[in-house]
Amino acid sequence: MTTKRTVFFISDGTGITAESLGHSLLSQFEGVEWIKQRIPFINTREKALEAIQRIEAVAERDGCCPIVFTTLVDEEISTLLEEAPALCLNFFKTFVAPIEAEINIKSNHTVGRTHGRTDSSDYKNRIEAINYTLAHDDGITDRDLSQADVILVGVSRCGKTPTSLYLAMQYGVKAANFPLIPEDFDRGMLPGTLKEHKAKLFGLTIQPERLAQIREERRPNSKYASLANCRAEVSDAEKMMRREGIHWLDSSTKSIEEISTTVLQEIRLDSKASF
Amino acid sequence: MTTKRTVFFISDGTGITAESLGHSLLSQFEGVEWIKQRIPFINTREKALEAIQRIEAVAERDGCCPIVFTTLVDEEISTLLEEAPALCLNFFKTFVAPIEAEINIKSNHTVGRTHGRTDSSDYKNRIEAINYTLAHDDGITDRDLSQADVILVGVSRCGKTPTSLYLAMQYGVKAANFPLIPEDFDRGMLPGTLKEHKAKLFGLTIQPERLAQIREERRPNSKYASLANCRAEVSDAEKMMRREGIHWLDSSTKSIEEISTTVLQEIRLDSKASF
Repeated sequence: MTTKRTVFFISDGTGITAESLGHSLLSQFEGVEWIKQRIPFINTREKALEAIQRIEAVAERDGCCPIVFTTLVDEEISTLLEEAPALCLNFFKTFVAPIEAEINIKSNHTVGRTHGRTDSSDYKNRIEAINYTLAHDDGITDRDLSQADVILVGVSRCGKTPTSLYLAMQYGVKAANFPLIPEDFDRGMLPGTLKEHKAKLFGLTIQPERLAQIREERRPNSKYASLANCRAEVSDAEKMMRREGIHWLDSSTKSIEEISTTVLQEIRLDSKASF
Repeated sequence: MTTKRTVFFISDGTGITAESLGHSLLSQFEGVEWIKQRIPFINTREKALEAIQRIEAVAERDGCCPIVFTTLVDEEISTLLEEAPALCLNFFKTFVAPIEAEINIKSNHTVGRTHGRTDSSDYKNRIEAINYTLAHDDGITDRDLSQADVILVGVSRCGKTPTSLYLAMQYGVKAANFPLIPEDFDRGMLPGTLKEHKAKLFGLTIQPERLAQIREERRPNSKYASLANCRAEVSDAEKMMRREGIHWLDSSTKSIEEISTTVLQEIRLDSKASF
């Protein structure tokens, strides 16, 4: 029998941080169906009282305590919320005190700092990186490649585009990407002017079976999606990357977050960690 | 004088959750320059020992304790790391116990769950949403708009594209977007077939001064970027949205995370919270 439990993510800002750690914790419990409710922008006493009413209604409906994950910064609102009939876990409050003690500086308790700083250079970098990445998706152009932080290469549909966008959005990394296509294998040469930017190249490969499955969804019964063709393309791409000395990763069972994290390590962009 | 402190984000997975809450906490301290190091994929004793060596080297170099944020799930590795000369805060361990007690179920201590589930329906939804959003960016097509969860409208360069991509990537929301252009204002009609999908429309607007600044970076000294033109376009767009009864938001000082969170609330997609 599956247990049903309601979870709230409550924040004075977007609630994205509370959700991120909350989801991570919940993924550790099996046999529980989590009903998730997001309550962002709780930055006044009145809104906090409304949130408490929602929690009370759910506690009554479920016949048990909801779990409330918060990142509330404001002392008064946070304390108010603790009166709700719930297991209230404040990710923020728990860790601010030990950091204050360690560095001997008081935190400023400013609300909405995490995802509300559009004037910071980190934020501007991220927006610029998203624009760059969109303009350099799928080999559209090899202009301004000298500005790229990384250039992903690999056969069509191996995960280059979502990975590039994740790198840009999460880390402010300018990620161009180029497909390796049969014409490149015939010529035996990397596409466009990529040879000049070899130090920035990173390859993605994929199991032919998985590739065929993905391509079949896009273009059913095509030669493009056939297993034989996928096998040949993947084999040719790997040969080319090996010959050119391009590091690569098999994306078959990896999420875009895992691929992105590995790319950052490989291209030595680890220190570029803006968000 | 600015204090310099080194911070490590250590995880058995990507470290993205540790970074997310870590950054949020650090943003609360002023006058500190944080030197950030990411150490992902620490899933063996050997890798943990290497990480400890890196921490030791930094502690010696800095002459003070680094701060270590972790989401390590494995008991042995987590305990090992606590021996490093650092303030070690495990976001995961701290909260698993109270949740276990509340729901009376033991956590399964599985490593790499958060961003490593490519077989889940949530993950597949996100990838599908990214593909949908890219194919429906900037009014490219009005095919399949019935599949959209939300359709953003607004003048060129008011933030529609990055917001759409964030909605897709973070929440698995299929977000199309359409520019409102002078031709639409002249005709006095919404572009394409948008009228049929009115319930899904959400508008972004922007202060003309901010818009002129953004457009000036793209096309310096153009009529397109001139303040007079931006004023006219924004005014016409707001008139159109008001007439059509489209809810909107001023994006001028809001991050894509804040805009996205508001869009989810307004379009009543709050319960769609996959990631």
